[in-house]
Amino acid sequence: MIPLLHTPEGVRDIYGDEMAGMERLSESVKATMNRFGYEAIRTPSFEYFDVFSSERGTVPSKDMYKFIDRDGNTLVLRPDMTPQVARAAATYFREKPLPIRFSYCGNTFINNSGYQLRLKETTQAGVELFGDDSAAADAEIIALTVECLLGVGLTEFQIEIGNAGFFRAIANECGLSGEDEEELRRRVKSKNLFGIPDLLKERNIDGKAARLLLTIPELFGSEDILDRAASLTDNTAALASLDRLKSLSNYLKLYGVDRYVSFDLGMLSKYRYYTGIIFRAITYGTGEAIASGGRYDSLMSQFGEPMPAIGMSVTVDTLMLALERQNLLNKPENGRHCVLYLADKAEEAIRLAQEKRAEGYSVSMIPVTQDNAEEVAERLAKEGAFIWNI
Amino acid sequence: MIPLLHTPEGVRDIYGDEMAGMERLSESVKATMNRFGYEAIRTPSFEYFDVFSSERGTVPSKDMYKFIDRDGNTLVLRPDMTPQVARAAATYFREKPLPIRFSYCGNTFINNSGYQLRLKETTQAGVELFGDDSAAADAEIIALTVECLLGVGLTEFQIEIGNAGFFRAIANECGLSGEDEEELRRRVKSKNLFGIPDLLKERNIDGKAARLLLTIPELFGSEDILDRAASLTDNTAALASLDRLKSLSNYLKLYGVDRYVSFDLGMLSKYRYYTGIIFRAITYGTGEAIASGGRYDSLMSQFGEPMPAIGMSVTVDTLMLALERQNLLNKPENGRHCVLYLADKAEEAIRLAQEKRAEGYSVSMIPVTQDNAEEVAERLAKEGAFIWNI
Repeated sequence: MIPLLHTPEGVRDIYGDEMAGMERLSESVKATMNRFGYEAIRTPSFEYFDVFSSERGTVPSKDMYKFIDRDGNTLVLRPDMTPQVARAAATYFREKPLPIRFSYCGNTFINNSGYQLRLKETTQAGVELFGDDSAAADAEIIALTVECLLGVGLTEFQIEIGNAGFFRAIANECGLSGEDEEELRRRVKSKNLFGIPDLLKERNIDGKAARLLLTIPELFGSEDILDRAASLTDNTAALASLDRLKSLSNYLKLYGVDRYVSFDLGMLSKYRYYTGIIFRAITYGTGEAIASGGRYDSLMSQFGEPMPAIGMSVTVDTLMLALERQNLLNKPENGRHCVLYLADKAEEAIRLAQEKRAEGYSVSMIPVTQDNAEEVAERLAKEGAFIWNI
Repeated sequence: MIPLLHTPEGVRDIYGDEMAGMERLSESVKATMNRFGYEAIRTPSFEYFDVFSSERGTVPSKDMYKFIDRDGNTLVLRPDMTPQVARAAATYFREKPLPIRFSYCGNTFINNSGYQLRLKETTQAGVELFGDDSAAADAEIIALTVECLLGVGLTEFQIEIGNAGFFRAIANECGLSGEDEEELRRRVKSKNLFGIPDLLKERNIDGKAARLLLTIPELFGSEDILDRAASLTDNTAALASLDRLKSLSNYLKLYGVDRYVSFDLGMLSKYRYYTGIIFRAITYGTGEAIASGGRYDSLMSQFGEPMPAIGMSVTVDTLMLALERQNLLNKPENGRHCVLYLADKAEEAIRLAQEKRAEGYSVSMIPVTQDNAEEVAERLAKEGAFIWNI
């Protein structure tokens, strides 16, 4: 048999300093979420396919890992936590009245094409807040995101905030829906400045809303762009979504996190379940968002319990990468402690190791021979280990 | 669409007090493993099928969740961590000399038949020690298992220890192999007192080794049974495996954990990769082992790096169940802190919540109306929450 030493493509082993860093990072993020009153939940790694079906607006079916159980049901490895936590909340709601605050930390699975070189299994740490439709709730989620990032030592980052309702209102006003809306979303998302007027022209769409659509790719930056956008439309739903962002902005000042925030009205999410504010956190050192989230007020009705909801999640692997590239990953402080011993001194070595463990040290027992004792001690000392010789 | 509120069979959501208990338990077990010098590793949730193939002696193929990746490779959700960590160690070994100590905490997946009502996804926390073939290493693993269990508050439990080499030696002496050995293993495992002589008679096997086989189901209890077994055989390999257990027993006295230990020479594991000592921890309140492990000195050669190895794992879900049934699950001490506020007082409420969070409290913001304020406050107070009204 040929030794099988590599993991499947897109997944990996994590150990050593990286793993130690990842554990510290997860602990820190969990502690921040706990400070905001979120209660930990753990959901299964797989679900019935329908929980993630396209009607719920999660990732495309072809990007999910699917398999069949003994009874012939189609199961999928969760590509995203939100629909699962929503399902759990719909049940939990019967025991506990609103609002419900859940936090999670677990793995998600996306079957990307190989050439994207992306990780197929990533760790997500996030929260979901059910039953509070206020702008104050939106602000809590953004503030929590900022505090999670500050808590792990990141200082240079930006939270870009949009509102899924804004684009939807304008697209509706233009009479766009279905395939056409999808195509427009793609072009807006990729900031395709020529593609947007081409599409509108093809479909013979003009007027105030069409002109605003052409401007959308420029509508990003500080709070001012909200006023600018408001001056370009009289669509009630669009204006309401701008008002919401202004109100959010005021609360964020109160939280003292406004300096980390900017607005982007052209922002669209791959998750179609978002109905209100959407956001993502970016930093340098990685092209992917380190955190993202949004409001999804219609998803819960699909689980039989209509209620407003908003959530966010940190992609732990991407955040780790960013911290590493920004040289912000601290090495663990307490080094290794090793008891080096010859085979016939095992009893004495065990006694010493147990004594030191009781004092709180992390102690490894390392058997040596007369021949290699010196070499092993030297190597361990070079790695910064503290050594007891028996 | 019908609301899909239930998880697939054999998996579940964990939240509330159970989740809080599970987190405390995992932290405690991880801390104990760290004190013994084990370094955390995280391996992927799925692997190429071959890593868990029958030649490696892991769980039967029909009990694994299998699926196909984009390139047509068969992948499986890991049913067991040991072969994965062994694979990782075979690579790691090139950077770091022996011994290697890895600890893990993650989910494993076994596609049991539905009627067994067993969990199909469970959390395993365990360690693997590579490159140390001594009885002192065996003792370290057993002592660590005992300390993990004591650390989470369990006091009444037993570690039953056998030696996979003992049965193998006697079966070999009887000339049993292949199907016959498998059948004998099944009968010994189920302590089928009539089945064993029947099989030996059918195959015309008698002599000293056959007589010993008949006695195996009785060979369990304190250290004395090792001497009793030794008096019944002159098979060199069998005697060596008894000597090993005696030597282990002496080290366990040194660790002060001998009172938690008993021996069982009829113990056989479902994992066929075990070559030396095997063990399992049992307690009341659950029929399943709460921890198990053993020595597997030949598995690493299948990953191209022959070296001795031993490991153990705690089944966190089963341990939780036992603690719960034994009333040993402490409720978290610090209760919830809630800021109840009317919508127009959101700013003041945020200020107070942030102030209390900075002081280290876990604070939930709960919007109320004039109408429901009293009722909500009453309910939360009943749950033991501390309330600030704004």
